[in-house]
Amino acid sequence: MSFGGIAMAKILAINAGSSSLKFKLFEMPTEQVLAKGVFERIGMAQGKIEIKSTTDNYTSEEPIENHSYAVKRLLELMKELKIIVDFNEIIGVGHRVVAGGEYFKKSVIVNGQVIRRINDLAEYAPIHNPANLMGIKAFRKLLPKAVSVAVFDTSFHQTIPKTNFLFSVPYEWYHNYGVRRYGAHGTSHRYVANIAAGLMQRPLSDLKLISCHLGAGASLCAIKNGKSFDTSMGFTPLTGITMATRSGDADVAMISFMMQKLNMHSMPEVIYDLNKKSGLLGISGISSDMRDILAAAKQKNERAQLAIDIFVKDIVKYIGAYTAEMGGLDGLIFTAGIGENSSEVRELIAKRIAYLGIDLDPELNQIHGKPVIISQPSSRVKVMTIPTNEELMIARDVEQLIKETSLKQAANL
Amino acid sequence: MSFGGIAMAKILAINAGSSSLKFKLFEMPTEQVLAKGVFERIGMAQGKIEIKSTTDNYTSEEPIENHSYAVKRLLELMKELKIIVDFNEIIGVGHRVVAGGEYFKKSVIVNGQVIRRINDLAEYAPIHNPANLMGIKAFRKLLPKAVSVAVFDTSFHQTIPKTNFLFSVPYEWYHNYGVRRYGAHGTSHRYVANIAAGLMQRPLSDLKLISCHLGAGASLCAIKNGKSFDTSMGFTPLTGITMATRSGDADVAMISFMMQKLNMHSMPEVIYDLNKKSGLLGISGISSDMRDILAAAKQKNERAQLAIDIFVKDIVKYIGAYTAEMGGLDGLIFTAGIGENSSEVRELIAKRIAYLGIDLDPELNQIHGKPVIISQPSSRVKVMTIPTNEELMIARDVEQLIKETSLKQAANL
Repeated sequence: MSFGGIAMAKILAINAGSSSLKFKLFEMPTEQVLAKGVFERIGMAQGKIEIKSTTDNYTSEEPIENHSYAVKRLLELMKELKIIVDFNEIIGVGHRVVAGGEYFKKSVIVNGQVIRRINDLAEYAPIHNPANLMGIKAFRKLLPKAVSVAVFDTSFHQTIPKTNFLFSVPYEWYHNYGVRRYGAHGTSHRYVANIAAGLMQRPLSDLKLISCHLGAGASLCAIKNGKSFDTSMGFTPLTGITMATRSGDADVAMISFMMQKLNMHSMPEVIYDLNKKSGLLGISGISSDMRDILAAAKQKNERAQLAIDIFVKDIVKYIGAYTAEMGGLDGLIFTAGIGENSSEVRELIAKRIAYLGIDLDPELNQIHGKPVIISQPSSRVKVMTIPTNEELMIARDVEQLIKETSLKQAANL
Repeated sequence: MSFGGIAMAKILAINAGSSSLKFKLFEMPTEQVLAKGVFERIGMAQGKIEIKSTTDNYTSEEPIENHSYAVKRLLELMKELKIIVDFNEIIGVGHRVVAGGEYFKKSVIVNGQVIRRINDLAEYAPIHNPANLMGIKAFRKLLPKAVSVAVFDTSFHQTIPKTNFLFSVPYEWYHNYGVRRYGAHGTSHRYVANIAAGLMQRPLSDLKLISCHLGAGASLCAIKNGKSFDTSMGFTPLTGITMATRSGDADVAMISFMMQKLNMHSMPEVIYDLNKKSGLLGISGISSDMRDILAAAKQKNERAQLAIDIFVKDIVKYIGAYTAEMGGLDGLIFTAGIGENSSEVRELIAKRIAYLGIDLDPELNQIHGKPVIISQPSSRVKVMTIPTNEELMIARDVEQLIKETSLKQAANL
């Protein structure tokens, strides 16, 4: 196989946050991971770099002035660590972008206009989009020959029908200001849905799936015939199920009431509490980490038990809701931190929705680290745990867009 | 049958709003409605009175200074219209009270302490509780011998377990300030659940029911073994499904965004829009009345169709969610304006949840005005339409509390 004239090529997948930059370097089309790592505390007094390659581990604590410097340092280190010999080996860089609004319905090759659009869309993701752009700009400057691709968290959800994406507020809020359900984790839901169809040996286009992405951020997605049909995150990633520190669905009138009680004078103050002090942490009072909470509940900590019960209840409710919306369910997917690793949480959920025709296999439910069906053969709904891989999905999108461009260029010759 | 020493007695059910007072006079224990009516535009330049008795209709336009005057006028008119001969015939007055908080777990005989508590709870229902209290005080003054009873919208929901009533916000918000799901329409959900068990010829204590109270205000209630297990309204009646003019569930972060866009400086401004300009009215842009919207949709009005689709989708989602929470479903109840009268909406909902084992009988689904099973005999889940009667439930609670008091007094003789 050959694409872009290069038989074997390297593609970087980048996730740039406001003070961090994560990367994964793939050899394509083999999809082998050549290296991965993270630059943390960018812009702070002391930064931290961790890189793992197939042969080497590198860590250092050093100041990382800004994203541009982080990218420069990453490229230097990849040479030093002999991960690459020449920068030209990297034919493409794919960037996670949080908010693509209604404009970006799929991944795109970055140009000046795309950059302007991502910047315009920052009002929907004021912390994330500007950080994502810093990553994009730094790589475009330092690797000018590599194709730069933006992969949006929201794109997969652009197939959600209007009936499911509108809030019941004045229609002008949508029409004039773009207020609607955008969702998130789209790249993850898209990735695991494809793997699920493979495990089930059925075409994705025939399936009614629910994907439960249960990490620190968590969302459920109803996937009907391969397309996102509804998702639990809303206008922003605050909504939906209980998360590590985020509230999920809350009552707006309660917020007004609490602002008075706590003498808060602006919405951002209370939204900070809903983002940072709520969810599993807010209920349990001890930790935002499900592992700590499970351990505490075993020691009879009541609020830890309550946090688990509420987390499970929220997921059960959304599974029921999406099954109703789709008019049935063929497969249920668990992914991300808790979804991949907590047999306990999966079991608690599966037990409560047995009426849907779900019968977990207790032994298969212990398997970690690979995609697997964990329900009994007799289970009407197949239950799966699938390690997510947003970076691979990003690399595949880059590969695909480079191929398409090459084909177009070839056709025009 | 005799209670309180009076074989036949009259009981008034009162619903006092901020500028209105509705009443229904029952003969108990026959439950015959002797008269009903409404006083409107209390405190405004010109008020309006409508009274219907078994023999007479009375209407007038006249100033109604305040609730106290309304009650005085009502009692005078009941004599004039020969509905009653002597005030002592009215042995009890039951008052709807919106917010009972966690304190009132059932209906209670009103005394000074109860009045103080209802007043304290006004922070959870700033418009309703003070109005309800005006009604209570006026009747206590003018009918001092009648037993005064408070019947709370929230009491029925006090059986909801903590897992289902807590929001995933800092626990202190609940512990210190009482922030939780209180629900509403409790008297209606309680009433129809009892009728449903009768129709199904099964003990209520064995059943998993979902009651859909679909009026201008609308809420769903999961009723497990006769007890409220979850409900769609939250801290206030703003939350849950799309209503006539209320948004139902909304994204808090969206509110912050819209406040900036619309230059609103306080939460009450935006909450006003969510209460008054949202829901069916906000989506359709033409009306808050489902009948108008159904008619417009038949004329191919796209936004009217969208409003119907979203309303139906919300109900379908909650039915799915509550079925999952309860681990199954035996009976589905439709009540209140839309629930009792719109065969069309019921059919749209039933079609989408056929997978639950729901099979509507198209002919039975046309029946109005009486409690009836409208599903096919083969339908695994029984679907019912049941006219609600909150006033009768209030009168029954008054009757019951008078009986209990008499029994206690007799025991102490």
